[in-house]
Amino acid sequence: MVYELAVISVKPGQEAEFEAAARQAIALFQRAKGCTGMEIRRSVETPTEYHLSVKWATLENHTVDFRGSEDFQEWRRLVGPFFAVPPQVQHLETTFVGF
Amino acid sequence: MVYELAVISVKPGQEAEFEAAARQAIALFQRAKGCTGMEIRRSVETPTEYHLSVKWATLENHTVDFRGSEDFQEWRRLVGPFFAVPPQVQHLETTFVGF
Repeated sequence: MVYELAVISVKPGQEAEFEAAARQAIALFQRAKGCTGMEIRRSVETPTEYHLSVKWATLENHTVDFRGSEDFQEWRRLVGPFFAVPPQVQHLETTFVGF
Repeated sequence: MVYELAVISVKPGQEAEFEAAARQAIALFQRAKGCTGMEIRRSVETPTEYHLSVKWATLENHTVDFRGSEDFQEWRRLVGPFFAVPPQVQHLETTFVGF
């Protein structure tokens, strides 16, 4: 299992529109191959910054299957207009869950 | 509820030592006021980079109570020697959990 973490900077003043569009996109992730979770958090210190965290069974489920899908284009169509800059995407694996 | 996210860059070659020290520190977070969870993830693309995520009941439980405690000094004593640079710390709030 791998986490995609996308740090998304939203154009100032378009936070509510971005959040609504991201909610609309939940179904895209729900039906994506190997996707088992998706949530969004917002920075307290930088309120235009969001962290999209998506759980994938494998790295390739994100980088190959999802990014190669029509639903990725739909995701970008929904939320892309609110991006201030291209998202910074990385992947993380759990080292340990303390509690 | 607020998430502390500390991005920790570890000196190359000291990843296992850092992980062991962080495991030793679990108890410090378990007994910290308002702390309800702690986990560590590691970057796939940059394996010297870790994301420490800690759940706090309030922002002040982290910034005032924990940082002002002896246990914070103990945390830094345990893991500080493995930091390549000072950690980058921010706080996040849940916008939504899609699924």
